[in-house]
Amino acid sequence: MNCNVPTDIQFSFRGFRQRGGSTGPHSDGWGIAFYEGKGCRLFHDDSPSADSPFAHFVEQLPIKSKNVVAHIRRARTGRVCIANTHPFHRELWGRTWVFAHNGQLRGIKRKPLTGFHPIGTTDSEHAFCYILDRVRAELGGARRSSIGRLVHQLGVELAQLGEFNFLLSDARSLFAFCSKKLVYIERKAPFTKAALSDDDFDIDFSQVTTPDDRVVVVATRPLTNNEVWMPFRVGELRVFADGASVASYG
Amino acid sequence: MNCNVPTDIQFSFRGFRQRGGSTGPHSDGWGIAFYEGKGCRLFHDDSPSADSPFAHFVEQLPIKSKNVVAHIRRARTGRVCIANTHPFHRELWGRTWVFAHNGQLRGIKRKPLTGFHPIGTTDSEHAFCYILDRVRAELGGARRSSIGRLVHQLGVELAQLGEFNFLLSDARSLFAFCSKKLVYIERKAPFTKAALSDDDFDIDFSQVTTPDDRVVVVATRPLTNNEVWMPFRVGELRVFADGASVASYG
Repeated sequence: MNCNVPTDIQFSFRGFRQRGGSTGPHSDGWGIAFYEGKGCRLFHDDSPSADSPFAHFVEQLPIKSKNVVAHIRRARTGRVCIANTHPFHRELWGRTWVFAHNGQLRGIKRKPLTGFHPIGTTDSEHAFCYILDRVRAELGGARRSSIGRLVHQLGVELAQLGEFNFLLSDARSLFAFCSKKLVYIERKAPFTKAALSDDDFDIDFSQVTTPDDRVVVVATRPLTNNEVWMPFRVGELRVFADGASVASYG
Repeated sequence: MNCNVPTDIQFSFRGFRQRGGSTGPHSDGWGIAFYEGKGCRLFHDDSPSADSPFAHFVEQLPIKSKNVVAHIRRARTGRVCIANTHPFHRELWGRTWVFAHNGQLRGIKRKPLTGFHPIGTTDSEHAFCYILDRVRAELGGARRSSIGRLVHQLGVELAQLGEFNFLLSDARSLFAFCSKKLVYIERKAPFTKAALSDDDFDIDFSQVTTPDDRVVVVATRPLTNNEVWMPFRVGELRVFADGASVASYG
């Protein structure tokens, strides 16, 4: 989720977490990162999100954030444990970067790493370290306007190894890359009602927003069943900031 | 807390968090890191721990860990926000390092940084980045047996700038440095009853332990009022592993 004003993610997370063991098979742990300025609240759990008391608690937390990355895991590479739970996080340029991946990358561990190193044993965390190494090596000591193009190139490069849908954020922007499937929705005035796909629950956004609010939600499958979600193109990177899609590559 | 078997910290955290706004003035946020192997669950909140519903929830969580670092903050340098909330965390050598500091360091921001950079604006996070930069620069690509001596040297160096009691961990060991005040207790069989200093609550450890359990707790002031806590010497670094003090420097 990426927004122009701090927004809670209770509605979306309520539906999303059902996919971790109830309406979906991604029951090998879950995690969520809520940015607050450059700071970040992180939650990681290795139980299924659908029935974890901890996920239930997080769903109730009225944390408002302009940028949130959440993930539910279906373990393929690496055992079920906290160290292998997304979103992964690292500091670069005095910012917390977080990363969540859907898919599987064969042979990624042969890609050499220089500065960042995996703590767990997943293909995903290795890919994240590789991306940050390359970003630091090619852009130097600070973010540059070419970062979107570089992240897109890295997405295309690594997608040669398998399925590589990912979310990446540096607190300022949300980078979303689609190697196979990814959808997004931009909600803005006039706000309407939305109904979850994964739970019997709806919300009238017009009651909880102001006319200037803008909220983007990105997911592998639509989280609601009565709104139009936009599909990404295969190989496309979109950059979201302040609740809007601000750039697209590929 | 550092232990030889995964142990919950519910008892100690129950008393400790009272010092964040009830029995103590450290009400500018709190955080806690629970290692699980090389993975780490992190919780950060910018409300007073004594009355935060979130701290109450964490107190109830039966998370068992061999290594936990918790902190309550009294803001001196840097505003109250998540980015300024301890424990700070970074990856080095494929391990999560966490750091919590009690005290204040004048002029620390003039110490140059090379690889790690603060996300927030505290003196503490700058000191942490400086320590990790120096550890990486002097030990190279992996931990060496000289790490205790080096962390002690860095503690002594930075304590010239002010009060610098700190906890540092790499998941394997807990490094505790005392520039002014720090105490610890090693609990082992025969276990007895302990009563919190900050809450009307006691526990009979003999009922919840096995004879081989060993648990070390380090704090600025004793957390219980009926046990003997050992004071650190001024300028002393102790290294704890598997629930025992395994080395001392200074």
